[in-house]
Amino acid sequence: MTTHHFQPTHYHTTIGSHEAVLRLQPGDTVITTTVDARGQDSSGQQITSPGNPMTGPFFIEGAEPGDTLVIHLDKLTPNRPLGWTRRMVAPHVVDPEYTPQLPWPADDAQGLAQWRVDLTNGTVTMVDPPAPLAGLALPVNPMVGCFGVAPARGEAISTATSSHHGGNMDYNGFVAGTTVYFPVLTAGALFHIGDGHAVQGDGEIVGTGVEISFDVEFTVDLRKGWHTRWPRGENSTHIFTVGNARPLDQCVQHATTEMIRWLQNDYGLTGEAAHLLLGQAVQYDMGNIFDPAYTMVCKMAKRWLS
Amino acid sequence: MTTHHFQPTHYHTTIGSHEAVLRLQPGDTVITTTVDARGQDSSGQQITSPGNPMTGPFFIEGAEPGDTLVIHLDKLTPNRPLGWTRRMVAPHVVDPEYTPQLPWPADDAQGLAQWRVDLTNGTVTMVDPPAPLAGLALPVNPMVGCFGVAPARGEAISTATSSHHGGNMDYNGFVAGTTVYFPVLTAGALFHIGDGHAVQGDGEIVGTGVEISFDVEFTVDLRKGWHTRWPRGENSTHIFTVGNARPLDQCVQHATTEMIRWLQNDYGLTGEAAHLLLGQAVQYDMGNIFDPAYTMVCKMAKRWLS
Amino acid sequence: MTTHHFQPTHYHTTIGSHEAVLRLQPGDTVITTTVDARGQDSSGQQITSPGNPMTGPFFIEGAEPGDTLVIHLDKLTPNRPLGWTRRMVAPHVVDPEYTPQLPWPADDAQGLAQWRVDLTNGTVTMVDPPAPLAGLALPVNPMVGCFGVAPARGEAISTATSSHHGGNMDYNGFVAGTTVYFPVLTAGALFHIGDGHAVQGDGEIVGTGVEISFDVEFTVDLRKGWHTRWPRGENSTHIFTVGNARPLDQCVQHATTEMIRWLQNDYGLTGEAAHLLLGQAVQYDMGNIFDPAYTMVCKMAKRWLS
Amino acid sequence: MTTHHFQPTHYHTTIGSHEAVLRLQPGDTVITTTVDARGQDSSGQQITSPGNPMTGPFFIEGAEPGDTLVIHLDKLTPNRPLGWTRRMVAPHVVDPEYTPQLPWPADDAQGLAQWRVDLTNGTVTMVDPPAPLAGLALPVNPMVGCFGVAPARGEAISTATSSHHGGNMDYNGFVAGTTVYFPVLTAGALFHIGDGHAVQGDGEIVGTGVEISFDVEFTVDLRKGWHTRWPRGENSTHIFTVGNARPLDQCVQHATTEMIRWLQNDYGLTGEAAHLLLGQAVQYDMGNIFDPAYTMVCKMAKRWLS
Repeated sequence: MTTHHFQPTHYHTTIGSHEAVLRLQPGDTVITTTVDARGQDSSGQQITSPGNPMTGPFFIEGAEPGDTLVIHLDKLTPNRPLGWTRRMVAPHVVDPEYTPQLPWPADDAQGLAQWRVDLTNGTVTMVDPPAPLAGLALPVNPMVGCFGVAPARGEAISTATSSHHGGNMDYNGFVAGTTVYFPVLTAGALFHIGDGHAVQGDGEIVGTGVEISFDVEFTVDLRKGWHTRWPRGENSTHIFTVGNARPLDQCVQHATTEMIRWLQNDYGLTGEAAHLLLGQAVQYDMGNIFDPAYTMVCKMAKRWLS
Repeated sequence: MTTHHFQPTHYHTTIGSHEAVLRLQPGDTVITTTVDARGQDSSGQQITSPGNPMTGPFFIEGAEPGDTLVIHLDKLTPNRPLGWTRRMVAPHVVDPEYTPQLPWPADDAQGLAQWRVDLTNGTVTMVDPPAPLAGLALPVNPMVGCFGVAPARGEAISTATSSHHGGNMDYNGFVAGTTVYFPVLTAGALFHIGDGHAVQGDGEIVGTGVEISFDVEFTVDLRKGWHTRWPRGENSTHIFTVGNARPLDQCVQHATTEMIRWLQNDYGLTGEAAHLLLGQAVQYDMGNIFDPAYTMVCKMAKRWLS
Repeated sequence: MTTHHFQPTHYHTTIGSHEAVLRLQPGDTVITTTVDARGQDSSGQQITSPGNPMTGPFFIEGAEPGDTLVIHLDKLTPNRPLGWTRRMVAPHVVDPEYTPQLPWPADDAQGLAQWRVDLTNGTVTMVDPPAPLAGLALPVNPMVGCFGVAPARGEAISTATSSHHGGNMDYNGFVAGTTVYFPVLTAGALFHIGDGHAVQGDGEIVGTGVEISFDVEFTVDLRKGWHTRWPRGENSTHIFTVGNARPLDQCVQHATTEMIRWLQNDYGLTGEAAHLLLGQAVQYDMGNIFDPAYTMVCKMAKRWLS
Repeated sequence: MTTHHFQPTHYHTTIGSHEAVLRLQPGDTVITTTVDARGQDSSGQQITSPGNPMTGPFFIEGAEPGDTLVIHLDKLTPNRPLGWTRRMVAPHVVDPEYTPQLPWPADDAQGLAQWRVDLTNGTVTMVDPPAPLAGLALPVNPMVGCFGVAPARGEAISTATSSHHGGNMDYNGFVAGTTVYFPVLTAGALFHIGDGHAVQGDGEIVGTGVEISFDVEFTVDLRKGWHTRWPRGENSTHIFTVGNARPLDQCVQHATTEMIRWLQNDYGLTGEAAHLLLGQAVQYDMGNIFDPAYTMVCKMAKRWLS
């Protein structure tokens, strides 16, 4: 149960079988930092290439394919006062015939918007808001945009997308206090983390949350022989499963199937009971709908599982 | 501001330009009943053909294409003690390779599950639960599964699906206290309503909520010249827009575009402000993912719109 | 085996249970005309409302749900010298981020292109081509864009879309010499036909073929008790099945399943044989990808079925 | 213009920035071999791990991002007498409710089918056909299932899928005589090739063509500064573009956009002319619909481009 203080010296823009920066025992805690999506650190200085640079990977002793890696998100704290967002929703989230009316150009050509993150007041506010948004103060909700484990077969997958291994899921339920489960796909699991958001709407439809560097604390654990196929998680009220694919219909399929397996294998539900319960009590949350792979989350309240 | 007590004598399983059962003035209130999805009334007797039979249509005086029909859902009250559900999630909401493990047969061949609806306690419980669900008591949440207006061009669209005109959206946010807006597509709007659910999980993934007959009270109004393209709604906390299509990605496109239009046209937001706000504050809820057309809801909290 | 000469006096822009214009015996032939997609007849005069107006419906004596209607497309002949097309591919068939570079406006605001249809030479040429297309002469390939039978349950479905009943499939394989099978969904089948194209690229991606009025001759037949779920067809070289839905993935599912049923039920293939054959010999053609519902065709060469 | 005889000693099941096995000058020809999808060589012996093992990568001198790699497929020759296929279409290409009727188990659990490849007669026949397929002799059509260049950003992408870089596209138009263009995404391009099929139906819907090892001859070239975003190709009659994604709708978008760019940038067509031509003359072919990413090909006949 060691607590490691780790200061990254380099970052990765793929999640893959990169050389581990630290070897952890199940139960260990890591206190570290992440840069923002453009590689800017707590001082606002760009110290690495943009594109969701990852801190890590961390090798977890004893992790083998067929196991599940457990990540407790202990603390997620923006560590500088300013974050930034893009200014236009993705053209693929509006009707194709509407696209000419979007406030083009897309992406960064029109400059990024700056947002002030005030942890004392718990608010996120625009630095230079357009008039109709003067006074807008969103509640801060720090979340991890992109994290996961090295994929199988030696793949190295861009941090711009997501799949079985996790990745850029941009689900605003990945907040401190949440426990996340990743299928171990290669020896040591090789956990990567980065892409913190001070707040983010569902879907990350402008392509960013309020992007910011983080102080991060997480604790790892290992469930030997607990076979999972997609990321899962739980918080004080719900268990949930995560499907990453496109279109969203396929995310729904992955997440729902993973939830059925979980309910039947670990919560003592027969198939009949699992289906009856899901039909009247399932909930779905939307993660990323900006990336090549989208994300949908299937949730079940713990109160129905006792 | 007349209150009409209307007792239906026949029902429709398409939403179309059927002969109106009643002519209403904007401001009028209707107190009526709906049968359940199989055509069973408050006594549990089947009195019409199954398939989401609709009460109505109601002709609203003065409604013309280009206007928007306003429906205040005043009261939605299950009017008998027992509802029913199917027992298996739709094969299209799980992974295709998982389908052999589903508790087939689908649909009604294995019999329907009966649920007791207790309005005093506010609970919905299974009559004959499998052991793992003994003691399960879901909070009652009466909602309208299927309602809408006659489509344009003389179309008559099955109540098994949805589109611009509304229809079988199965969104569990369509509860009493909600105001719903439908684009008027033909003279008189021709409003239909039915398919009440005592409770329903997101997506209606078993193909039913707890299906039950309702006592219904709604008040109509008309917004002349307020042009809408998709159903919209609002409650005490949010405004929302509804996209009906398949795949879900296209629902997202329809609902998001409709929300952008609304924010810009009625809430004084510039395009720039609308996009900045949506990016960090938009929420999505899932309606039906069982039918030929799916439903996705795009929401914005009213607190960000003052 | 009567041959009927039928001159339409009105048209329908939905396919539904409209009053029949003629009652046919199986084996009867009909010689009639169709107007173009905008309601223009052989003289170029607009005589009915636009939107794929249908000639018919024709009631086929003895046709009942569970039967299959057989339509032999005997002759499809453009009956005027000029057709027209739109000028821009649909924004939904290009990448969303590319849409600003399209030659907007979409649809008809920039005027329609006129094309000369020369049956003697067998060519279709632009009347006023832009310079790079001077000399372009496409081979004439007259095909039916939209035809089908009344849907079940009293639905009346817009001729802008397609489903089990057929409709606006825009498959350029629906040419003279082809036999088409439609599932009978209501008594008398109620066959509708219209929307002729002198030529059309795959997908109808500009929203039109070379739209033109037709002289049409077709012969009807009935296969009692031959149960089909989707339109099918055959020509001298292939049998084929048609799936209408969105996304294209779902069209593939419908068409492939229908083909498997056909091979097993009528061609003496076991499941094992059907799958082995399909894997190495199946072909797919694309129909409409412009409408609310897309179309995909699954084909099998007859030479592999003897 | 050197001709290299290259005998592979190891293979890769990702396409990525692996160490080059050979450095080529533009204009060079390579004569080499590929193993089949399970790693079996010309003697039928498994010599490497299964999963579309790739021969290569080949480093092309002077290739830089922004250039396009040209691959002439000179010869593709099955080099052993027996290939193999799976026996069941993928459950995701049939209707979800039909899946219980499939001849499960999927994949390889029921054994592979053996096919005899006779280059003299030009036929592919089953070794042990079920009775209804006795006598079936498909024409041999050797094609490359999986090939492409290293992706950008250090990604290493599984040979089970496809994207901008090419990969497992399974298009039965990738035959000898075809020239294929890949966007160069990293220095040296790093070309990989493998996964030969003696014949394959559209879509590779059983998950395999007739899988077999190949003798391969290809010639590389480089088009400096010719910017492409997706694989392209040409043969004696057509130019074509390839979109890899899911759903198929998105493949259509990628391929159509890439074709529009090509027509406008290299064939002297204005936007107006490109759209008018595509509308009436475009063709689409289907590649892989089995993998995580599907493939659709957009084609234009050269005769319309002179």
